[in-house]
Amino acid sequence: MKILISGFDPFGGEKINPAYEAVKRLPDSIMGAEIVKMEIPTVFHLAAEVLEEKVRQVDPDVILCIGQAGGRYGITPERVAINVDDAGIPDNEHKQPIDEKIKEDGPDAYFSSLPIKAMVEKMKEAKIPASISNSAGTFVCNHIMYQILYIIDKNYPDKTGGFIHCPFIPEQVVDKPNQPSMNLVDIVSGLEAGIEAIIERYGKEDVKEIGGTIH
Amino acid sequence: MKILISGFDPFGGEKINPAYEAVKRLPDSIMGAEIVKMEIPTVFHLAAEVLEEKVRQVDPDVILCIGQAGGRYGITPERVAINVDDAGIPDNEHKQPIDEKIKEDGPDAYFSSLPIKAMVEKMKEAKIPASISNSAGTFVCNHIMYQILYIIDKNYPDKTGGFIHCPFIPEQVVDKPNQPSMNLVDIVSGLEAGIEAIIERYGKEDVKEIGGTIH
Amino acid sequence: MKILISGFDPFGGEKINPAYEAVKRLPDSIMGAEIVKMEIPTVFHLAAEVLEEKVRQVDPDVILCIGQAGGRYGITPERVAINVDDAGIPDNEHKQPIDEKIKEDGPDAYFSSLPIKAMVEKMKEAKIPASISNSAGTFVCNHIMYQILYIIDKNYPDKTGGFIHCPFIPEQVVDKPNQPSMNLVDIVSGLEAGIEAIIERYGKEDVKEIGGTIH
Amino acid sequence: MKILISGFDPFGGEKINPAYEAVKRLPDSIMGAEIVKMEIPTVFHLAAEVLEEKVRQVDPDVILCIGQAGGRYGITPERVAINVDDAGIPDNEHKQPIDEKIKEDGPDAYFSSLPIKAMVEKMKEAKIPASISNSAGTFVCNHIMYQILYIIDKNYPDKTGGFIHCPFIPEQVVDKPNQPSMNLVDIVSGLEAGIEAIIERYGKEDVKEIGGTIH
Repeated sequence: MKILISGFDPFGGEKINPAYEAVKRLPDSIMGAEIVKMEIPTVFHLAAEVLEEKVRQVDPDVILCIGQAGGRYGITPERVAINVDDAGIPDNEHKQPIDEKIKEDGPDAYFSSLPIKAMVEKMKEAKIPASISNSAGTFVCNHIMYQILYIIDKNYPDKTGGFIHCPFIPEQVVDKPNQPSMNLVDIVSGLEAGIEAIIERYGKEDVKEIGGTIH
Repeated sequence: MKILISGFDPFGGEKINPAYEAVKRLPDSIMGAEIVKMEIPTVFHLAAEVLEEKVRQVDPDVILCIGQAGGRYGITPERVAINVDDAGIPDNEHKQPIDEKIKEDGPDAYFSSLPIKAMVEKMKEAKIPASISNSAGTFVCNHIMYQILYIIDKNYPDKTGGFIHCPFIPEQVVDKPNQPSMNLVDIVSGLEAGIEAIIERYGKEDVKEIGGTIH
Repeated sequence: MKILISGFDPFGGEKINPAYEAVKRLPDSIMGAEIVKMEIPTVFHLAAEVLEEKVRQVDPDVILCIGQAGGRYGITPERVAINVDDAGIPDNEHKQPIDEKIKEDGPDAYFSSLPIKAMVEKMKEAKIPASISNSAGTFVCNHIMYQILYIIDKNYPDKTGGFIHCPFIPEQVVDKPNQPSMNLVDIVSGLEAGIEAIIERYGKEDVKEIGGTIH
Repeated sequence: MKILISGFDPFGGEKINPAYEAVKRLPDSIMGAEIVKMEIPTVFHLAAEVLEEKVRQVDPDVILCIGQAGGRYGITPERVAINVDDAGIPDNEHKQPIDEKIKEDGPDAYFSSLPIKAMVEKMKEAKIPASISNSAGTFVCNHIMYQILYIIDKNYPDKTGGFIHCPFIPEQVVDKPNQPSMNLVDIVSGLEAGIEAIIERYGKEDVKEIGGTIH
């Protein structure tokens, strides 16, 4: 089994992106599965081109992208990606699309095909704060998640894919009062736990666990 | 022009639902459009049956549902509804579905067909805190929004519809420390402003305004 | 009985200060007590001079100052004022003292001599979110509270005094995402309720109610 | 030079108190100063008796107490302790005093005699989120800080003392949604940095740095 994991490069004025920092620190093999790591640019569409090229080369069973969600308290597997780019800030090539479709011929949204409930359960067993998120936003993180699920839908029906957001790390919030953060070591542990859940439930349904949000 | 507006009944241990309280206080006519008001039960599927019956009777041009989002700071028009019921708490008939599709034959999501950016802009001009929300949750609020957009998609292609969440009112947070709230008078003003935007932009595209979120 | 109530002028880039806006809207008489209102400048020491001059003229039984605490969710009677000016931003005359004593010959702190527990209780009975605060900060609000209690301690042992912080009003947070606010009407109701508690318990001990904070 | 550092035992339903966990993990010597560690009970008055007994035995130059402040985002040296016990929850011997003076003959408050600005500066240099806090609450943490400063004031004028609050650690918030936490390794680093500042500035004034709060 082969799992391709990407992490974004820094954006929005940050010097570091904990997503790729965590991806780099993952082991090369988890429960027998090969872990292939890559950095992708925080740029609309280009991120998807770079990732898709790698998918062709590596032919992974699972495509998992990791991104930074400053302001979140725990690690958050995303439930759904929506077909819209609506950038609150410019991407790393200064593009700032407003309410543009990602794919003209795509549906309004795709659900993650990863076992997000089992992933959260496993992360919490590892003592890492985690929960399902029902919105990946409308910036490049949601964009790449939608693109993964679109190419899986169109071209790779046997692959599965999804997205995980992780918090700031402490050094990023030293000058941002009252912002939560998580040590990189804990982010790495949480991602490993999530990947274990992906491997354990591969080919099976997700667990049925309460995890919804009222709004 | 005719606008059907629903508000939910109280749920989750609350004695009051600011959504229906606000709907009740709206004028019967806004900018020449007739406003038809109704309360709907906070119950999966039943809410949709009750609403659809009213749609058949009233034949409105616009279907707008209002719900309570305790913990939010402002009024939030929702961008998208997703095809899943995942209840963190039981509904008012003690049903608590976990990860069930709302409509077996429906797509993963529907975007609101209301001009949400113009609505937020108009609310803020009226000095009411407001922003776009990219997740209506996975409880009955998301459910009814999905159901509206599903019946519009299948049966009423000329109608438009969507959903607005509003915060707790002060009396609801007197014993909930550090929870934001908004006076009912302000919620009513915000909804009126949003409805004015719906009327003004009826048949036109939404405004192009920055309003996305990074995650 | 005579109660002198001051509210600060706008500071920190705000165009309005809900403190004085609320003070202006109070009735001139509450439960038979005369309410004397005044605006004071958000300036270290000058605020105290202006207030003390008014105290000499009016000879009130109670001196109550009101200030804005942006970011708070409810109305918060302050428990204690500390003998330090430590300004995170400049005051309205561009002074920004760092760790300076307010009064060289003053103690480290003074407790409010108002019945803060009864005030919170009465505000909550009026359905207004309220709680005790254990810190008035280190800016001009804490400064004036310390100054009031200092002059009472030194010169006016028969008077009582204290301070109440109130939240932003909605128009102040329209462009500040995720900031709580309270309608001016509710701030006025909360202040009236607090003043009623002051009058009812005048000359008596405060109520014994749980209201402490763990940290 | 000798520094006595205490950490509280678990309270309020927690199984662990990161304060003592962090204290245990400190080195026995920092910059040549001897670090003497102890656990104290989260019990009003008893905590002070246990600590004072140790002060007599050890005769430290500095007395530093560490406590848990669940909900805080960073490490927070406290500026001031106030002469009141007002318990929102019972202590570990089921006592819950309401608005009782800690010391009948004590002043309303004592300022920390530690260089809190230099401590925060040093913590931030070590990339640990930190800031001054202006309230240690009204529970056992504030109590012990007041007691330390009281005994220093009355009996040990050559000693200095103060208090530092630290956040929850991740395992404590796994089932507390949207609560910030900090890895124990980072709490230990932050405390070490703070202790280094205490040693470096021993016998000198604190640095003059902006660090106040508006309210």
